[in-house]
Parts: sequence; structure tokens; C-alpha cells
Amino acid sequence: MSQKVKVAVVGASGYSGRELLRLLLLHPHAELTAVTSRALAGKPLTSEFPRFRGIAQADAISFMAPDIDAIAATGAEVAFLALPHGVAHQFAVGLLAAGLRVIDLSADFRLRSAEIYADHYGHAHPSPELLAEAVYALPEMRAAEIRDARLIACPGCYPTSVLVPLLPLLKAGLLDESPIAVSSMSGVSGAGREAKTAFLFCECNESVRSYGIPRHRHVSEIGQELDLAAGQPVKFTFVPHLIPVNQGICTTIFAGLREGVTLEEVEAAYATAYAGRPFVRLLGRNQSPDTKNVTGTNFIDVGWAYDAGAGRLLLLSAEDNLVKGASGQAVQNFNIAFGFAENAGLQVV
Amino acid sequence: MSQKVKVAVVGASGYSGRELLRLLLLHPHAELTAVTSRALAGKPLTSEFPRFRGIAQADAISFMAPDIDAIAATGAEVAFLALPHGVAHQFAVGLLAAGLRVIDLSADFRLRSAEIYADHYGHAHPSPELLAEAVYALPEMRAAEIRDARLIACPGCYPTSVLVPLLPLLKAGLLDESPIAVSSMSGVSGAGREAKTAFLFCECNESVRSYGIPRHRHVSEIGQELDLAAGQPVKFTFVPHLIPVNQGICTTIFAGLREGVTLEEVEAAYATAYAGRPFVRLLGRNQSPDTKNVTGTNFIDVGWAYDAGAGRLLLLSAEDNLVKGASGQAVQNFNIAFGFAENAGLQVV
Amino acid sequence: MSQKVKVAVVGASGYSGRELLRLLLLHPHAELTAVTSRALAGKPLTSEFPRFRGIAQADAISFMAPDIDAIAATGAEVAFLALPHGVAHQFAVGLLAAGLRVIDLSADFRLRSAEIYADHYGHAHPSPELLAEAVYALPEMRAAEIRDARLIACPGCYPTSVLVPLLPLLKAGLLDESPIAVSSMSGVSGAGREAKTAFLFCECNESVRSYGIPRHRHVSEIGQELDLAAGQPVKFTFVPHLIPVNQGICTTIFAGLREGVTLEEVEAAYATAYAGRPFVRLLGRNQSPDTKNVTGTNFIDVGWAYDAGAGRLLLLSAEDNLVKGASGQAVQNFNIAFGFAENAGLQVV
Amino acid sequence: MSQKVKVAVVGASGYSGRELLRLLLLHPHAELTAVTSRALAGKPLTSEFPRFRGIAQADAISFMAPDIDAIAATGAEVAFLALPHGVAHQFAVGLLAAGLRVIDLSADFRLRSAEIYADHYGHAHPSPELLAEAVYALPEMRAAEIRDARLIACPGCYPTSVLVPLLPLLKAGLLDESPIAVSSMSGVSGAGREAKTAFLFCECNESVRSYGIPRHRHVSEIGQELDLAAGQPVKFTFVPHLIPVNQGICTTIFAGLREGVTLEEVEAAYATAYAGRPFVRLLGRNQSPDTKNVTGTNFIDVGWAYDAGAGRLLLLSAEDNLVKGASGQAVQNFNIAFGFAENAGLQVV
Repeated sequence: MSQKVKVAVVGASGYSGRELLRLLLLHPHAELTAVTSRALAGKPLTSEFPRFRGIAQADAISFMAPDIDAIAATGAEVAFLALPHGVAHQFAVGLLAAGLRVIDLSADFRLRSAEIYADHYGHAHPSPELLAEAVYALPEMRAAEIRDARLIACPGCYPTSVLVPLLPLLKAGLLDESPIAVSSMSGVSGAGREAKTAFLFCECNESVRSYGIPRHRHVSEIGQELDLAAGQPVKFTFVPHLIPVNQGICTTIFAGLREGVTLEEVEAAYATAYAGRPFVRLLGRNQSPDTKNVTGTNFIDVGWAYDAGAGRLLLLSAEDNLVKGASGQAVQNFNIAFGFAENAGLQVV
Repeated sequence: MSQKVKVAVVGASGYSGRELLRLLLLHPHAELTAVTSRALAGKPLTSEFPRFRGIAQADAISFMAPDIDAIAATGAEVAFLALPHGVAHQFAVGLLAAGLRVIDLSADFRLRSAEIYADHYGHAHPSPELLAEAVYALPEMRAAEIRDARLIACPGCYPTSVLVPLLPLLKAGLLDESPIAVSSMSGVSGAGREAKTAFLFCECNESVRSYGIPRHRHVSEIGQELDLAAGQPVKFTFVPHLIPVNQGICTTIFAGLREGVTLEEVEAAYATAYAGRPFVRLLGRNQSPDTKNVTGTNFIDVGWAYDAGAGRLLLLSAEDNLVKGASGQAVQNFNIAFGFAENAGLQVV
Repeated sequence: MSQKVKVAVVGASGYSGRELLRLLLLHPHAELTAVTSRALAGKPLTSEFPRFRGIAQADAISFMAPDIDAIAATGAEVAFLALPHGVAHQFAVGLLAAGLRVIDLSADFRLRSAEIYADHYGHAHPSPELLAEAVYALPEMRAAEIRDARLIACPGCYPTSVLVPLLPLLKAGLLDESPIAVSSMSGVSGAGREAKTAFLFCECNESVRSYGIPRHRHVSEIGQELDLAAGQPVKFTFVPHLIPVNQGICTTIFAGLREGVTLEEVEAAYATAYAGRPFVRLLGRNQSPDTKNVTGTNFIDVGWAYDAGAGRLLLLSAEDNLVKGASGQAVQNFNIAFGFAENAGLQVV
Repeated sequence: MSQKVKVAVVGASGYSGRELLRLLLLHPHAELTAVTSRALAGKPLTSEFPRFRGIAQADAISFMAPDIDAIAATGAEVAFLALPHGVAHQFAVGLLAAGLRVIDLSADFRLRSAEIYADHYGHAHPSPELLAEAVYALPEMRAAEIRDARLIACPGCYPTSVLVPLLPLLKAGLLDESPIAVSSMSGVSGAGREAKTAFLFCECNESVRSYGIPRHRHVSEIGQELDLAAGQPVKFTFVPHLIPVNQGICTTIFAGLREGVTLEEVEAAYATAYAGRPFVRLLGRNQSPDTKNVTGTNFIDVGWAYDAGAGRLLLLSAEDNLVKGASGQAVQNFNIAFGFAENAGLQVV
């Protein structure tokens, strides 16, 4: 299967864009035809990302302006959108109309309901009909829908780290109704590549801080998926923290087990849900995942434990926010959508 | 009040010892008469800690072997013990017998009950009568007892970060009985200065990980104090994480408010508990503390928020694990015990 | 000597300004009457620098707009200028006219010659007469001039780290005429606090890089002082590097010893030049300074060695770029200028 | 060419071993038959390196004791030695005798002369005849010898970063005889994975320091190769620095151009020497390499500039000390020795 799909990366100057390029430049089934950036149009790709020099595809391509017709004219069959929330939407509409499939890394199409969207974002969704069509593409849960989707909405980085450990347990009805507490720690790349004082080296180094309290905007998509899995509203609190590492999210979840449920049942639910899934690594009981084991890769590591003293189940995950939490997951969805091996181009450690 | 107290630092080669020295070398009311280290006996203090060169007291002193009679012979009136758990006990017994007051930074005298001690440490406490005498010296809560104590047991770094936000609320009866979830993130100095592979630069840098699950040994002293404050057993789960910074603990707590209790009542309880306390900084509602604002200082910053969606109260604290979490708190206790201004020698930013 | 001098900090929102505040807030002879920032005018000081909360002077003061009359009206007797190069000049002129002494941390008055200035900065110096009056204030070399100066031009961070090891040897005629090579490594705070992509956490973390080649703008003041000390033009090359630490400069210098000169003569020159100087710590032969021993302090550590194989003298220094390299040195100059103990307010480790 | 060579990694528990495994586990022409560690014998590979879980070869293999017969019995055709200096030698002798080819990452066979070896290491080389046979395997310079070698001695990390920029210029006779100054900055992984206090996180983080002055042991192999290239003794001084990053070496070299030589001739020498070499990236004039562009890859980036003021040529390089400086270069040599594409298994960004 040495077939190559022509792909465009729209919005390639940020960290998600850079990671997409890193993965696609060496992907056996991808041929990059367009790489866009409004600010960098006309410049060689490697002038902005010198890391990629010496890779043939990288040396040969330059940024182009993000024009829908021009992108379509390159012959691209699929476009990855690594654009800010709100901007992605406009390109999705146009590129779909031009016949491309769209893999969107932004939050624009992650919510099923235009109402919830309006609630969280403070304005009506501009294309509610696309919300209905888009697939919330956690590949471990929705491979079938992804295969046929025109519009693939990749989950956010924090949500992926929360949903992978929680969904199988909610689906299996193992958790009680007490509020779930989620404490997440993310590397600074999660804040994007825009020049902001708060993310200067000296403001983040030797610093640990929570932010976005009491309700971070990511809770909407987390809530949507937890509720769907549980078949009823799930109460949860989510507190993100900024940690001085480049890449990596570590998530620690405190939940209540339904009375009588054992840790063995938790483990069975995981074993069933993730059997044969190449990127979920189940570490086992009382094992703590470490972000350094997943950085640069598409793996998400999951551990768990039971604190009998407080009667609380602990769920622990680690992923790379830019890979499994963004670009790697997008490539995984690309592989599924185009019928390639799920781990094509993602076999990196 | 230019009076000077003669002080000994027993076990001065680790990070807590180093921070004690940093504070005591410039303390207006401390005269260092003994600085001990078995491994470094005979060597100038500044050979191990070149940072202190040029400070008169530091240039003048050498490490001595940790011998109780020799320490007492220097005229020391008080000994700070920055020794490993288990070792501190032996020195405390001997130094108390030699007439010194003892300020212990280890865990050896933090529990009131010999039973709980045996339970958590797997062996009987060797001096149960001292457990009864020792004061669990959180200075914001026990200034009166500290003033007269012979044996001052300084709280641990994690416990300080958990107890300062929680105790006033439990005392005021504002929290319900649902399990409290505590997620703490600590800098690597919390692991001590012993040469262990797990704490090499390359093992910690670009890494975030939980550890000590499901029950870290610090839970015993946290539990003791929460129960005392609440007047009944308090259920809680504590998960520590290792973060690539030198110093700093960030703690995020999820708790349930008793029905009908408002955030204003939480704020009133804090205002009352910490009025006039020089080292607790109440940041206000929806404010996230940042460890970079407290490193090197004896401050602990506290913020709070209410997540109405899940019905959870969020309590947030930041401190320097080596200062407010260890050596600074020990100096604060020294100031109280000897009648100096509580912030003497601790006015540093 | 409990006298207090009224001081203004003009341009207090950057890193040098912040460090000035850290030192002046607790300085026994300084009373802050004005703290300026165009962007933050009207806001409490602690809203921008929460680290300073709980310090009485900090809690009491707000930023004001940088207006010369308003600054003078606060009664300030001296103004520290922590402003960008080019901007400092305007304030210096006005504040001097208003009768204040000026301690300038910028490069505006460091060069003696308006010609050299024009050469390096591409435009004529706007107040050449002030250039003649200003003292290039390396306090270890020019204490007498500083005592009487109206306009004190503090040396740059890199120049300080280069000049302290080199000047005594050039003055003593110990070096030959072969080109001196200087390799300096600076923490990221040296780049300032402006929001620029190049200094985002993820662009600097896990990165080491030289910059400013082949001729960094700092070479002009280094050259001026080397030439003065040697009494003839000195050839040197200076390469700065950006290192992922917050604060600290490590400088390594390769020079040729004049034939017949011994390392003992080097050591004698240092001993003479720095006898009794409180902030230069001579580490000794074959000793490498480490920035972690000087961060936050006003010390500069100096080591040296002779590589007989290549016939090269190695000079090694470490300082905190924001303290001895900027704000601490400014306070040291303040102490000298106002007749206080040279280390007043700088006794921190 | 889907042929697979059976390979052993001897001494796989350190950082070079880990990087070798990272590259070999996914190498299209390598089949791992033995992975040794005295301390970890019997344990699954992924118990020590959880990062490799989920990679088929990694999941299937366990550490074995480092026994020469046992290694040979696995059918290995080539052994990579990632052992401490002094230990590697013993295994090389035995494994060569057992018919394997040996790719040694240690310093044991890097010197041509047993005399120089004795001089630098303080004892006679135990197998001087092997010194004569071994190839100092800088692949950009000695591909032909590597192709046929039984014993391949991979250059050290610092030497690689120094030799790649210098050798073509010395060979072309472009440099004068003034001493060359080399300032190198290395990440902490260069210090190895042994538990030593000096390399704990808190001892390296927020620290920059030189070490090994005045003569680091790496100078012997650098000197050997510089002299060979120049055809006469070359004077140089080498000062390494420890920098708080995991991986990466940045090297800055100050040299004198022979009179009349232009920068164009420097550039022509580079162009000739490195034409078609896949891993040397020539950045161009006044371009500073950045370690963050090469970490994890086998690239070495080279920039240059001329400081007319001092008459000094600046040469700048960046590489990953564990990859191009160790394991990647070893794999590159493996590819050459076995006739594979030079970049097989090394096409990673």
C-alpha cells in the first residue's frame, strides 16, 4: 500500500502545525501539497522550521497564503486545519465545498449542539448543520464514523487525557454519581505560539500555577462526551495547571466507584475497551504514567489505583498534548479515514 | 532587641539544611555555633555551599560531626534538626536531655498517637512520651503552644500546603462530608539531595508524573490535623506529582461545601483565621497562586473558587517546599519560641 | 545611619525594574516615592508583581505615568532608569535638570565618545555633553568618581562579566597582544520582558544557541574599557549564547599571557585589585564558577586556569545578569554615591 | 533491501544505550538479538524504558547479563558497545574473537597511539594491536575505512562537534597557527546515567558552569584528529560547560584565518567536504545553529562568521550529544559498514 494522499496543512506556523508537519513529512502515505501561513506566505518552510532542513519534502516546499481556491488547486484531497478557534470554521466550510475532506484540530466542530456551543462561546455557531455532520473523533471510540466522515473534529488535548481513562468506566456503569475531580498539568506549548508575556520563558520557568478557574472552556466537550458515555449528566470539575515543560499533559482524576464494584472490574473494562488499540498503553494498578515516556509519540499511558481510606478511584494518564492531544491524533484519524494502518507514520519513539 | 540566640543546625548538608543556613546566616537574632554533617565533618561550610562565601558567619564556620555532647558544648540553646526521618528522633532525645530546645524538621514527632505512627511507619515509636509533648507546629494555628514548647515538630511541606487552606473551613464547619481530593505538585528538591537515579536532571526535566499512589506517607499527619479541626474523621485522597522546578509546591483541593454555605462564608473564615498573620497571603476569589511568587520566601498564597456546575469548592495554594514547607517555617517557629518578631530574618523577596 | 534617601524607579515593569524593586523595597536607606510604567499607570505595584505582596512599601505604592515633573514632585532625590536604550536618555536629561541624581541602567551613557556611539548605534548621540560627564560606573574600578557623579551609567550585564576578570590583568600588563576570545552564556531574562516569539518558553527551553554574531552591540563598551585599561587597542571577539535559565551569566575568556608571566602574577593582580571589595569572590586556580551560586545576589565569582598545552590563560566568571549585571550593581552605585555601606541592602543569599 | 542484520547492544541501561535502542528498535535493517545490562539481567526491556512499550521488538526482549559467549550465541553479527571507558575494551576483544564486528561508543579505541593513550589515561593500553586496527569513525571523513572495519571506534560527542567544523579548514590549509579556542556547552545527559549528586536535577537546573579545566580528557582525540588534518601540531584550548538541557551540544570555535584567506574559501571548503553528506547541514554565513533544531536527530548544523574587528573566524556547531555525538553516529557507521543507505533508520525529525 504505497499509495499517497495529497494533503494540505492550513495554519502551519504554530506548534500544532509544526507537529503535523513533523509527522506528515515522513508519513509513508502523505504528500504535502500545501502549507499555509498568512504571515509567512512565500517563505521556505525551513526558514521558519530549521529543524526540517534536510528532509526532502520540507526543502521543496514554501508557505502559501491561506486561500481556499489556491489550496484546492494544489490537488489536496484532505486539509488539516491547525487554526485558531473561530477561524477554522470558515476554512472548513470552503474546503468541504471544494470537495476536500477536513480534519480540524480546533474546537469549532467538537460540540454536537449549537445551543451548548452558544452557551460556552457567547455567540451562535455559524454553521449548525455542520455540527450535526462532524464526528467528535476520538479514534479509540469512533473509528467507524471517522472512516466515512467528511468533517473530522479532533478532540482537544485536555479532553483526550480525561476521556480515554473515563469513558470505558462510565459506559460500563462502574462509577457512582459523586462529582469527579480532574487535575491536569500541561506543558507550555498548549498555550500556543503567539507572543504573549505570560508565556515568556522567564514567566513559566520555575513556576507552577493553575489557571482558568473555576470553569475552563474545555469543559464543554468533556461534559458532552462524559454525559453521552454515562447516558446521564455527569458532574465533574476540571482544573488545568501550567508546568514548565515543552510538551506533555499529566492528568489525575478522582472518582467514586459504584458500591460493590471492584478494581478488577475497572481493569476488565479497560482491557475490553482498549484491546488491540495501538496507542493506549495500560500500565496497570498503582502505576503512575510519566509524560517523559510519551513526548513526541502518539501514545497515551493510563494507570489506576484505589484509595481505600477515602473510597476514591484514582485514574492517571499521560500524553503529549501536541501529538496524541492534537496532531498525532489528527494523523491517526487521517489513517483511519483513508484506510491506512492506524499507526502509519506514527511509529516513533 | 539585638539579642542573639546560639543555634545549631544538625544535618546541614541537604536542601532543608542549606535553606536553614541561608536564613540563619543573615538572621538578626541567630548566632550559628554548630553546623553538622557526618560526611563533611572538618570541611569549611563554604566548600559544600559556595553560595555562602562572602557572608561573614559562613566564612568562619566548618562542619562538625553530629555528636550530641559536642553540639551542646558549643553553647547552642536550640537545635534545628534537618535529618532523615528516623535519625532525627535519636538526636532530639539527646539534645533535649542536654537542655537544648529542639526544632525538628523531620516527621518523627508529627503524630500525636504512637499507634498511628506504628501503623504508618511499620514499627513502634521509640519515644512515645515525646510524641505527647511535641507540638505539631503550624505557627498560624498553634503559636501559643509553640511559645512554650521544648520540642517543636515542624509540619511537612505537602501538609502545610494542604492544611493552611483547609483547616479554617473545617473548624468553621463549612465543608460537607464528601471525600476531599488533593492534587499537589512539588519541585524536585522535595526528594532530597541523596544521589538517586530517579532524581537526576535528565529523569526529571521534561517530565511530569504522579507518585506514591494510592497512599503517600504524608497522609497520616494531614489526616490527624484535618480530623482534629473537623472534630470527626475527614475523608480525603492525596496525590503528589513531581514537577521540573527546583522549589515550590502548588496544591489544588476539591471539596464539597455544606448545603447552604456561601463563598462569602468561606472568605470570612479565612479573613478571621489569617488576620494579621504575616505569611499567609489571601489572593481572593478566582485567583490562582503561582509558585514563582513565593520561591525563596516564607509566604503561602491561597486562592479559592466555586465551580457551580459540579458543586465543588476549589482551594488553591502555593508555597516554597523548602521555606514555608520546611526551613522558613522552622525559623518562624524559632522566632515565636524565643519571642522575636514572627518575621525576623524572613523578610526576603 | 538610619537615613533614608527618596528614590524613584523609572521603567519598573521589566525584569531589571523588578529586581531593582526587590532590592530597594527592603533597602535600609531607600524610600520608594515613585515607580513608573506607562502601561501600568494607576495600578497597584503588586498587581503586576504579586511576589511583593505583604511587603509594606510594596502594598502602599502604585505605578504612576513616567512624567518628569511628577517624579520630581514626589521628592525623589535620585532616579534609577530601567528603560530601553534610547528612551533612558530623554528622562536622564529632564531629571538631571530637575535636580535629581540619575543612575541609568541603559546603554545610553556608557560610551565616552560620541563618535563611537554614532558608529555603533547608527545615529548621533543627542546629548554629547552628558557623555563627557557620565561615569561608566563599574564600582570596583571607579568608586571615587561614582561618589561625586550626577549621572551614573551602570555597565551592561555581559560587559561586567568580561571586565571584572580582564581589567586587572590588562592594567598590570600581563596579557600579550593575541586576540582575546570571549564566550558568554546568559539566562533568558537578559532578553527583557517584551512579548517576542523568540523568547517564549518553548523556543528557549531545551535550546542552546549563540546569537548576535559576528559583532554584538555590547562590544563597544567592552572595547572602550579594555583599551583604557591596557592603554592601547585590545583585540577581542565576543560571542553571546542564550541558555535556558532565568538569571545568570557565565563567561569564559581565552587570552594569551605575555611571555614570562606566571599564573602567580595573575593571582597577585587579582588579589590587589579586589582586596576588600565585597562582591568579587576570587575562587582560585582551576575553580569553575557556577551561576547557581550567584543568582539573586550581587556577587561575581571569578576563577582562572592555565592551559599549558595551548599556552592560553582561561578566565571564568559567573554573575546574575539582573543583579551584579544590572540592578544590584545600580544599588551598589547608589550606596557609594550616597555614602552608605557598599553592601547595604545587598546582603542577600 | 529488506535484509536484517542481527545486532547486540552491550551496556544498554545508560543514555547512549537507550538512544541506540530507540534507533535500532525501528531500524529497517536491524534485528535486536541481545540487550545486556549486568544490573537488569532478566528484566523486560520496557521495565527500565517504559517509553518503548508498544514497539513490538521492545515488548519481546529482556535484558541479559553481558556474557560474551551468550551474546555470540544469539547469532548477533555486530555488537554496539555502550559501556564505560575501560570496560568496553574487554568486550571488544572477546566479541571480535567470537567473530562479531564491533561498533564501540567508548573512548577505548579512539587513539591511534598507545603512547598518547598512556599519557592521557595514566596506564598502558591493554591491546595496543587493536588500536592500530580500529578506525576513528567520523563517517563524514572515513567512510571507506569504516566499510571494511572490524572495530569501529565512534568519536566522542564533544570531538564530533569540534571536528566537523574544523577538519575541512585544516585540511585545506586555511587557518593560521594561532591557538584555537573552543567553548562547548553540553546537556546533562553527557554526564551519564549514574546516580551522582552533581547531576541531580536541583544541582543542574538554573545553573551554568564550566568544568574539566584546564585540560578535559576529550582533548586527546580532538588533538589527534586536528594534527592529522593539518599535517602538523595544532594548538587549541577546549572548555566544556554544563547546561540545563537534556540533550544537545553547542560548540563555538574561535580561530585565525591564514593571511589573505577569505570567507568564500572557507565556504568552498565546507561545500566540497560535505557535498552529499546527509547529516551535515551548512547553515551559511552569520547563522547560529540552535540545539533545539537537532535534538533527537543525527544532524549536525554548522554556521560561521568573520569578526573583522579582532580578525577571528567563528565556527559554530550544534548536534545532539546522544545521537550525532554517540548513538546516531554509531548507527550511521553501522549503515556504512553493512552497505545500507547511510540514513537508514535515521530519518527522524
